[in-house]
Amino acid sequence: MLLETKLPIRYIFRRIMPDVLRVLFISLAFQLIKEVFGSYLPPVPLQLPTILGSSISLLLAFKISQSYDRWWEARRIWGAIVNDSRSLVLQLSSFLKPEAQVPGPDQRTPVQAVTYRQIAWAYCLGQSLRGLDPLDGIQSLLTDHELAYTKTHNNKPLAIMALHVQQLRDLANQQFLNSFQQIQLDATLVRLTESMGAAERIKSTIFPTSYRLMVYFFIYLFLFTLSLGLVETIGLWEVPVLLLTASTYFLLERTARYLQDPFNNKPTDTPVTAIARNIEINLRQLLHETDVPKPYPPGPYYLM
Amino acid sequence: MLLETKLPIRYIFRRIMPDVLRVLFISLAFQLIKEVFGSYLPPVPLQLPTILGSSISLLLAFKISQSYDRWWEARRIWGAIVNDSRSLVLQLSSFLKPEAQVPGPDQRTPVQAVTYRQIAWAYCLGQSLRGLDPLDGIQSLLTDHELAYTKTHNNKPLAIMALHVQQLRDLANQQFLNSFQQIQLDATLVRLTESMGAAERIKSTIFPTSYRLMVYFFIYLFLFTLSLGLVETIGLWEVPVLLLTASTYFLLERTARYLQDPFNNKPTDTPVTAIARNIEINLRQLLHETDVPKPYPPGPYYLM
Amino acid sequence: MLLETKLPIRYIFRRIMPDVLRVLFISLAFQLIKEVFGSYLPPVPLQLPTILGSSISLLLAFKISQSYDRWWEARRIWGAIVNDSRSLVLQLSSFLKPEAQVPGPDQRTPVQAVTYRQIAWAYCLGQSLRGLDPLDGIQSLLTDHELAYTKTHNNKPLAIMALHVQQLRDLANQQFLNSFQQIQLDATLVRLTESMGAAERIKSTIFPTSYRLMVYFFIYLFLFTLSLGLVETIGLWEVPVLLLTASTYFLLERTARYLQDPFNNKPTDTPVTAIARNIEINLRQLLHETDVPKPYPPGPYYLM
Amino acid sequence: MLLETKLPIRYIFRRIMPDVLRVLFISLAFQLIKEVFGSYLPPVPLQLPTILGSSISLLLAFKISQSYDRWWEARRIWGAIVNDSRSLVLQLSSFLKPEAQVPGPDQRTPVQAVTYRQIAWAYCLGQSLRGLDPLDGIQSLLTDHELAYTKTHNNKPLAIMALHVQQLRDLANQQFLNSFQQIQLDATLVRLTESMGAAERIKSTIFPTSYRLMVYFFIYLFLFTLSLGLVETIGLWEVPVLLLTASTYFLLERTARYLQDPFNNKPTDTPVTAIARNIEINLRQLLHETDVPKPYPPGPYYLM
Amino acid sequence: MLLETKLPIRYIFRRIMPDVLRVLFISLAFQLIKEVFGSYLPPVPLQLPTILGSSISLLLAFKISQSYDRWWEARRIWGAIVNDSRSLVLQLSSFLKPEAQVPGPDQRTPVQAVTYRQIAWAYCLGQSLRGLDPLDGIQSLLTDHELAYTKTHNNKPLAIMALHVQQLRDLANQQFLNSFQQIQLDATLVRLTESMGAAERIKSTIFPTSYRLMVYFFIYLFLFTLSLGLVETIGLWEVPVLLLTASTYFLLERTARYLQDPFNNKPTDTPVTAIARNIEINLRQLLHETDVPKPYPPGPYYLM
Repeated sequence: MLLETKLPIRYIFRRIMPDVLRVLFISLAFQLIKEVFGSYLPPVPLQLPTILGSSISLLLAFKISQSYDRWWEARRIWGAIVNDSRSLVLQLSSFLKPEAQVPGPDQRTPVQAVTYRQIAWAYCLGQSLRGLDPLDGIQSLLTDHELAYTKTHNNKPLAIMALHVQQLRDLANQQFLNSFQQIQLDATLVRLTESMGAAERIKSTIFPTSYRLMVYFFIYLFLFTLSLGLVETIGLWEVPVLLLTASTYFLLERTARYLQDPFNNKPTDTPVTAIARNIEINLRQLLHETDVPKPYPPGPYYLM
Repeated sequence: MLLETKLPIRYIFRRIMPDVLRVLFISLAFQLIKEVFGSYLPPVPLQLPTILGSSISLLLAFKISQSYDRWWEARRIWGAIVNDSRSLVLQLSSFLKPEAQVPGPDQRTPVQAVTYRQIAWAYCLGQSLRGLDPLDGIQSLLTDHELAYTKTHNNKPLAIMALHVQQLRDLANQQFLNSFQQIQLDATLVRLTESMGAAERIKSTIFPTSYRLMVYFFIYLFLFTLSLGLVETIGLWEVPVLLLTASTYFLLERTARYLQDPFNNKPTDTPVTAIARNIEINLRQLLHETDVPKPYPPGPYYLM
Repeated sequence: MLLETKLPIRYIFRRIMPDVLRVLFISLAFQLIKEVFGSYLPPVPLQLPTILGSSISLLLAFKISQSYDRWWEARRIWGAIVNDSRSLVLQLSSFLKPEAQVPGPDQRTPVQAVTYRQIAWAYCLGQSLRGLDPLDGIQSLLTDHELAYTKTHNNKPLAIMALHVQQLRDLANQQFLNSFQQIQLDATLVRLTESMGAAERIKSTIFPTSYRLMVYFFIYLFLFTLSLGLVETIGLWEVPVLLLTASTYFLLERTARYLQDPFNNKPTDTPVTAIARNIEINLRQLLHETDVPKPYPPGPYYLM
Repeated sequence: MLLETKLPIRYIFRRIMPDVLRVLFISLAFQLIKEVFGSYLPPVPLQLPTILGSSISLLLAFKISQSYDRWWEARRIWGAIVNDSRSLVLQLSSFLKPEAQVPGPDQRTPVQAVTYRQIAWAYCLGQSLRGLDPLDGIQSLLTDHELAYTKTHNNKPLAIMALHVQQLRDLANQQFLNSFQQIQLDATLVRLTESMGAAERIKSTIFPTSYRLMVYFFIYLFLFTLSLGLVETIGLWEVPVLLLTASTYFLLERTARYLQDPFNNKPTDTPVTAIARNIEINLRQLLHETDVPKPYPPGPYYLM
Repeated sequence: MLLETKLPIRYIFRRIMPDVLRVLFISLAFQLIKEVFGSYLPPVPLQLPTILGSSISLLLAFKISQSYDRWWEARRIWGAIVNDSRSLVLQLSSFLKPEAQVPGPDQRTPVQAVTYRQIAWAYCLGQSLRGLDPLDGIQSLLTDHELAYTKTHNNKPLAIMALHVQQLRDLANQQFLNSFQQIQLDATLVRLTESMGAAERIKSTIFPTSYRLMVYFFIYLFLFTLSLGLVETIGLWEVPVLLLTASTYFLLERTARYLQDPFNNKPTDTPVTAIARNIEINLRQLLHETDVPKPYPPGPYYLM
């Protein structure tokens, strides 16, 4: 997530540079063509680029709006993960019989085990969505047995979720949870499974490629007709005019494209690591731990 | 689903060719008419095609946006099917009493039977939505008895869902599931039934035909007035100008039309086969199977 | 619902004719006025109709989009009715104790009674929404007693729903359903009640009338200023130009208006009869009946 | 809610008159200024009002769309109130033990008491939202004790809801409802509480005032530049042109403003009284009463 | 929340002033440049600023619409908090066994304790979202023990929610609530947790910064080309024309920006303090208290 105050010019420049160069090249080429073939070229009326300009605006408005929706949905999903992680721990510590609040063979009480596993799940899901090593940095949160089980799965976060389910089954079989409570906890796990699946859906669904191609085609057509329309009037001034207008269209398209893929390990990502860290802080404090980590530090102009 | 990196020019060309030819023919015909009847034709002011151009843009924006919504809803539905398939197996293996975890007369434990049937359901629904043979390739996942029952139904996926319901009833009658658990599993089946019905609704609901006709009519009217408006200014250059502008409008309409029917066995479909395969991989790994199939391979520029 | 392939020209013509005639009359009148009072009329600049044209486009875009939403919501509601009808029968046959699966005094098992009543409810709701006789053709699906009770109610589908509720209460009182199962079935009935109420809401809520009046007023104003703007340039050619542009606007408005009232017994309706028939086929096959009716046949270019 | 067929010219005129007069005054003033200072005024190019016109259209499109959403949400909320009122009575009569179906000290069976109270709640909420006396006309539906209790609350509908809750608690304490059924009825009350809160939210949330001010400012700026742009061309004809264009913009803004506040005791309100009357008819017929009131009669061109 | 009737000119002026000054400076600079370098500057055709003007309008329409959605979502969340606070108290007083309705060691009955804590939670959440001291003014509503526990948490509202959960667990362990009732109350707490998380999500998610930068860039480009386009026609009149048009664009952007951050302790905030006060009044009256506070008084032109 880009931070509000510190967006460096350099960052914008690097993003916009290829487009700027391309448009610069194109408008210089147009200039040359007009120099050489000027007398053969038709005087295109300026209504044509006006019509194309309004088509580009509407297509871009569509892209911007849908990519924003994807970005916002990704953020909502991770907001739901925060809520359900908190609810899971609150529910379990509320439901579990006092006699179950003792450490097991792995030195963890059931509430601790579920809490640490849930923290691990949040980190793991975020890293898996970003295409990073899903198990990086979460070894200490899982037992050796759990880690080994997780490695047998393609989908690591689903494996961790299956471990949650097994523990709840065991707690229910030992009568530490009654059926009502098991069902209510299961409903929370179902919601977490839904959030996981929804994030995977956004990650794996490619925004229809044709629209990008058509936006590009429209922009080039616009540049072309505008250049022909300005043929007699403004001379070399045409180059900066085309440059500025077209670059902004390209930049809008590019911004939309970055937003529409919010799990790409880029500065415009949903800040899944920072959110997972907040989950860790919240859950550890619900366990009355005092030695909690600090919030995840932002980068120079973004938060991951 | 079209893949991002590999969209071949040939694919776009084949899609766009009929429209291009039509517009080429029309603009040449206009040219001829103007040659012959030029003096009788009115000098249409260019504001008229400008107004029509903005109407076309708004109508196309509406079509693009609604067809995207249908396409995205189809993807959400299949995302929900992934989630609820995972939840169904997780819940059943969590709820079922240990004494029920033994193979039945068909050599399958109840969890295995439900899992294989759920995989079969996902493939079957996808093929049924695409108008293919719904039972193709899923015979090995169902028992002979189940297959025979399914064949008596018009709606095969509904028949498979009914088999799920029967098995859960039997498990509940044998006291292997208590009433709470039966209800919770039933809720998951209700959600799967809803997803199935929602996909069928998108498949069977025709996007209002009138809008397409009006978009076409508007584009022709636009071409006609633009051609008259350019009557004196740009001569034969008119042909490529009309061609490029109109083709893009037609291509936009066509792209929207393909998106709005995401279960048509076309490259722009929701990739239901690939999703069903992912469900199979996930569920088999939840059963601790190690011999799972590979993800469904993408085609040259699309994923089915 | 209009079918994709067969929309006859005649149907479109009949729909568009009044508007075309009106516009024809108006543009001829303008022509006459300009002939007589030409010298007193101001040369309106063409920017004015351009501005009005973009306002009309935006208002129409709003109307088209909202009416599409109503139409799509109507279709979603009937999709939910399909899903919950299936779920109701699946749940009841799964929950009911074996000893309850015997015919009652009316020769119907409880599952059969609920199934037939549910089919009757779907037909009845569709006919009631369309303002037809709600009980037409469903007498054989209800017992005489049920039919008599239904006739005492203003709202027939609500009466049928009340009969469902009474039967479930009796089954629960006879201990054929436990409390969990009663609650779960009740939840399905609550959803069906919600779908019924939502369809009634769409039926009874009039789309704000003012917007239609303003669209009309804008179109007339547009015609008027455009006619004045073209005063000197294109002569009698003005008539077909006005005619084509304005007719398309009127047709867009009319199409939106038809979509926005999807229960009006018109070809553009949500196909409630066909959906109810599909429900009948699905539910009867769930009862293992083999003598099921055929799908409801489409009309020449529409499906009711 | 305005009815479709009978919207009188007089009603529209009264609504539009202040704006018309204001614009008339302004355009006459402009006319005068141009007469006197004509030579000092710049010849504003007509592109400027065109740009402003498209900004006004987009702002109005935003306002129209959001106010429609508020209006439609208000209608959905009252639709949900209809559904949940029906469900409440159906559930209670299905759940309550036969021995509880006897009149209490207030001559009412529990089902009757809840039904009458629910009818009272619907009327009371509607009147309270409209700023009328919330208890007007519902005295006969509540017992004296209930009426007295309700009067101690600021929020009368919430008080009636609390009375529902008390009665359900008493019925549960007397074992006339088991815990499952109590929970299911409680869920219905929670949904009714949500509908009440949602309607109050729409009532109490002021649509951002700044947008209205800016629309007005834009319209005046548009009038001003348009008037300057037309300075030489059309003379006194300018007055009706400005008048018609600007009035339509003002009327659009005003229509949107009326829709956005659907509980203002105006003809454009959500018809809460008529809906509450329908609830009364439905619920009384569910109690097998035959002496039910008639539907609430519409006014001359609206339904309250 | 800004109130409808009293928005002072001074408030608008202060908000708009920096933009006005900036645009004034820019247009004067343009004027100077044109004075000096006039003969070198190209006669930019006015179609260019028209195209840019429509792009600005669409970008602003997007920003306005998304920021309104954030603002409205914030209001919905607090509406849900109102509903669930009422439901929580209604449910608890309905479910709790009579023998539990006695004061505990802290002189509060369980219902009172939960009610006061819930009021505290609402105030605390509002203040925490606004970056104020979250515990300010709620000390009297919590016991000393609760206050101390809350202070150990980073996230104070989550701590208060954990106290709710502990009390419900204790009540369930003492058999004052059965499992059904515990689950139903837990569901209400889950919804409150979701509302809290959703408000935090809006607070912590920065609206994509790039769009604001691009709006600004577009406006400057628009000013620049418009100024060049007007080079010959209107002289010094250009300054007020640029000033008025550009200021309105800037004001629109600024209004959208204020709406999009509804928890910033500004007059445009969601009125969380006033809502929390209403919750206090409602809940205290449900406890039959008569000494309830007054509604929170509005400021001169806003409600906090």
